[in-house]
Amino acid sequence: MFIIGEKINSTRSSIKEMFKTRNAGLILNLVRSQLAAGASAIDVNCAVTTGSELEDMDWVISVLQSEIPDINLCIDSPNFLALEKGLSAYKGKGELIINSITGEESRIKNILPLALKYGAKLIALTMTEEGMPDTAEGRFEIARKISDRVKRDGFKEENLYFDPLIRPISTEPNQAREFLKSIPMIKSLGAVKTICGLSNVSFGLPDRSLINSVFLSMAMQNGLDAAIMDPLDNKVMSGFYASGALMGADEYCQAYIKAFRDGLLV
Amino acid sequence: MFIIGEKINSTRSSIKEMFKTRNAGLILNLVRSQLAAGASAIDVNCAVTTGSELEDMDWVISVLQSEIPDINLCIDSPNFLALEKGLSAYKGKGELIINSITGEESRIKNILPLALKYGAKLIALTMTEEGMPDTAEGRFEIARKISDRVKRDGFKEENLYFDPLIRPISTEPNQAREFLKSIPMIKSLGAVKTICGLSNVSFGLPDRSLINSVFLSMAMQNGLDAAIMDPLDNKVMSGFYASGALMGADEYCQAYIKAFRDGLLV
Repeated sequence: MFIIGEKINSTRSSIKEMFKTRNAGLILNLVRSQLAAGASAIDVNCAVTTGSELEDMDWVISVLQSEIPDINLCIDSPNFLALEKGLSAYKGKGELIINSITGEESRIKNILPLALKYGAKLIALTMTEEGMPDTAEGRFEIARKISDRVKRDGFKEENLYFDPLIRPISTEPNQAREFLKSIPMIKSLGAVKTICGLSNVSFGLPDRSLINSVFLSMAMQNGLDAAIMDPLDNKVMSGFYASGALMGADEYCQAYIKAFRDGLLV
Repeated sequence: MFIIGEKINSTRSSIKEMFKTRNAGLILNLVRSQLAAGASAIDVNCAVTTGSELEDMDWVISVLQSEIPDINLCIDSPNFLALEKGLSAYKGKGELIINSITGEESRIKNILPLALKYGAKLIALTMTEEGMPDTAEGRFEIARKISDRVKRDGFKEENLYFDPLIRPISTEPNQAREFLKSIPMIKSLGAVKTICGLSNVSFGLPDRSLINSVFLSMAMQNGLDAAIMDPLDNKVMSGFYASGALMGADEYCQAYIKAFRDGLLV
């Protein structure tokens, strides 16, 4: 399971301010601390902006690759022009992930060529023009269609990450179960992978980190390949380390024991 | 999922001392605090004793039922005479559970008649004379044979709780996976249930409560029906409450939110 750090996201007002003031130092600090805490890639979202998203994207990619040339980046925007700006700006040695396509053909038509041109991986949300399905089966059906669609244009399925879109259990109590059930179903499609934007699950509940942590553990048990999450949240990371040990993915529980020694387990 | 409180166990030296000094007050305190923390039944084990296990069992059952007449008890001993003593001593209005039989015919022959005579539920460990199986399939095969065997004598399968016996992941990294895989397999036998003595999983590791908590969450996701555990361990109980909310078993997340308000979530 690999972690994509979620914190460079301009919907947070402190991040928006860093973009606005072009504060490269603070952005870099937050990126470095996420990497040190276990993130393998960094999500970059500057969609909420006071100026131009394209300029913000260009600036932040330049800053990051000049200081951390092998950084893996997840370029995150609803606007395909911002995605293109981010992808074209990146000259580093790391990997690129596009966040995201959906089952909507208009979006696939714009973004799939970018993924192919820049050799980027693709996150695909299991939703369409008609919205988000309630069931695991509905999620699987959309994933199957997206997988067929992008493979037809030559995209490799092992670079496709499906996000079955978790919704808050506070209002939809069966949605965690349906999400979790969908993971092995989607993975039965072949070499495709699964990913999860973790924190939605706990919206509206107290101690959100606890719910996020337990949900991550359950998803890891079901074979989740990646999560977009906050690696600086020790409670979530404690669930991550314990789950790795329990799933036999952490040889001799070394990472778990190291996390304990480093004082990271809560 | 229901919880059987594990703390009245004479392998712990403080408990052994309570038995030795016939300290009914301390025993009752520990029982009441486990019930208040969410235990539905109390495991009673006085196998490690300075005097007579049978006398200890008789005494502790008398103390508990006189103060808490509707208490559910899990009578726990390797010695079937101590089981019989506990079962016959109980005159309360609660339920009785016998802990435990195995696939060994000599043990079944002694204990199954007691379960039938006293209307007690039965915990069956998935092991035989040849030891404990490594795989989920091995656990399932033993469960199938035990289920057939006890049903032949008229024991109701819905009163049979299989414990697939978790072993420490510190020395056997694939054992959590095999245990978890065995839960739905065993439950496919029919109305039989599953149970877990939780704490073995974390033997040899630091922050055992964290491993126990995450393992319980994973087992609950797989359909575990009961756990013998420490309900006074807030970290494990936090996993329990979060898992109930995530599995949709906790309507409107009421128990989870109450646990938060009561300051129980860590």
